[in-house]
Amino acid sequence: MNLPNRIVLVGAGRIATHLGRRFRAKNLPLVQVLNRSAEAAQALADEWQITWSDKWSDIVPEADWVILAVRDDAIAEVGRQVAAYAPHALFTHTSGATPGAVLAPYCRRYGVFYPLQSFSAEHVPLWSKVPFCVDAHEAEDLVLLKKIAKTVGNLVYHITDEQRAVLHIAAVFANNFANHCFAIAERILDQQGLPFEMLHPLMEETLAKALRDSPERMQTGPAIRGDIDTLQRHLHWLQPHPSWLALYVAMSRSINPQLPLRELTSEDRSTD
Amino acid sequence: MNLPNRIVLVGAGRIATHLGRRFRAKNLPLVQVLNRSAEAAQALADEWQITWSDKWSDIVPEADWVILAVRDDAIAEVGRQVAAYAPHALFTHTSGATPGAVLAPYCRRYGVFYPLQSFSAEHVPLWSKVPFCVDAHEAEDLVLLKKIAKTVGNLVYHITDEQRAVLHIAAVFANNFANHCFAIAERILDQQGLPFEMLHPLMEETLAKALRDSPERMQTGPAIRGDIDTLQRHLHWLQPHPSWLALYVAMSRSINPQLPLRELTSEDRSTD
Repeated sequence: MNLPNRIVLVGAGRIATHLGRRFRAKNLPLVQVLNRSAEAAQALADEWQITWSDKWSDIVPEADWVILAVRDDAIAEVGRQVAAYAPHALFTHTSGATPGAVLAPYCRRYGVFYPLQSFSAEHVPLWSKVPFCVDAHEAEDLVLLKKIAKTVGNLVYHITDEQRAVLHIAAVFANNFANHCFAIAERILDQQGLPFEMLHPLMEETLAKALRDSPERMQTGPAIRGDIDTLQRHLHWLQPHPSWLALYVAMSRSINPQLPLRELTSEDRSTD
Repeated sequence: MNLPNRIVLVGAGRIATHLGRRFRAKNLPLVQVLNRSAEAAQALADEWQITWSDKWSDIVPEADWVILAVRDDAIAEVGRQVAAYAPHALFTHTSGATPGAVLAPYCRRYGVFYPLQSFSAEHVPLWSKVPFCVDAHEAEDLVLLKKIAKTVGNLVYHITDEQRAVLHIAAVFANNFANHCFAIAERILDQQGLPFEMLHPLMEETLAKALRDSPERMQTGPAIRGDIDTLQRHLHWLQPHPSWLALYVAMSRSINPQLPLRELTSEDRSTD
């Protein structure tokens, strides 16, 4: 198995930017940025002193790995268009939610190179802690992707399309939904003129506990205790915020299925 | 204002244990542990080399501050019973969810000394980062509680009963509910035979972002993007788990009220 000689990055968003920088830092042969918008492609290509284009047909000859770091709903179409000019290259996307097989109609060698992390524009990822989820149609390409992932990161997992789909659902809970819980807490404090910083230590401890033990075992709060008086007071306070109220009820039910919450919510509503 | 000369701790649970240790470490005059169960009281009293009892009437004479670190639903009754033997002492509880005024019928001096943190049995709290929320009926007692809180901790807030009630709701979202999101993610991965550790870096990044910026502004994921295809796949996968499904829908609605989720869920159900 040979490492790729000419890597082409398609896309210029957060993942493309961070991955590209990491590839350059590790001396991997990233040779070109392709992107629909010339400006963003040029900015990255200038930073890395490599070529760029906003036309797929400009792809460098003998490109042997094309990384599609584009929006989920653009992967298949961009893959189709680029693959027409590089039929022998390995094509991978970087998405947690998209099967590798969406590329199957357009190229013989396809796979997934998915860094499981939430990237932000300003912060350099801690690559040693980013799990790379890789998969490939061809066994040889899988070996190659694992090897590259080990070069740019440290944690490498071979994850099938089905596992990755489920992993993405779990990530939505652990990232998007946990963040939304923090966001509601922030809004609630805002309304009382209290600083969100008051909750920072509690949030840090919440995470620390979830990392060192099973979060299910560490569950605390009125729902798991079956503390109906407190739940009732909270639901009453949440009445003017229907979406938070619905969320509070769904959460409490999921935490403790034994809670008599149906009666509780209707009773509470009637007293309002 | 004089600092208290004889502090009595009522209770022997996690908060009592951690607070008591901190008081001893800071040379505050903690002189007695009272608790319904003799065994737990004795263990703490032995550790601190102070007196203990399982009878409220044994309270030391001239106790001037009684800390009720007992279960929320026991505060009023235990307060009533102990106050009968120490009518001049200041009584405070340590609860986020209980008004200070529940103690009003039983003692002239009452208040709240509430460390806003999730304590675990094995880990010493990082006291400099624990916000102490204090309140008292008498202005002089408030000054005293602030002073003590500054001695054992660093962050001190005067928080009224109403603010504390709302703060507790926010804490339920930021701690209990965020933790439950982690717990569901863990269960989902379990079912696929994937290690929960795969999500640890994402969870750490989620928290880091929420601490350095507004979590509302940092919201990502299929709901905020309005990515209906992904939402539909996720809802379909969650069908066998009704409580997770309900939670996913409530979360997505709360994150993005514009989502056509009602149609989406009924459509998805009919195809199942």
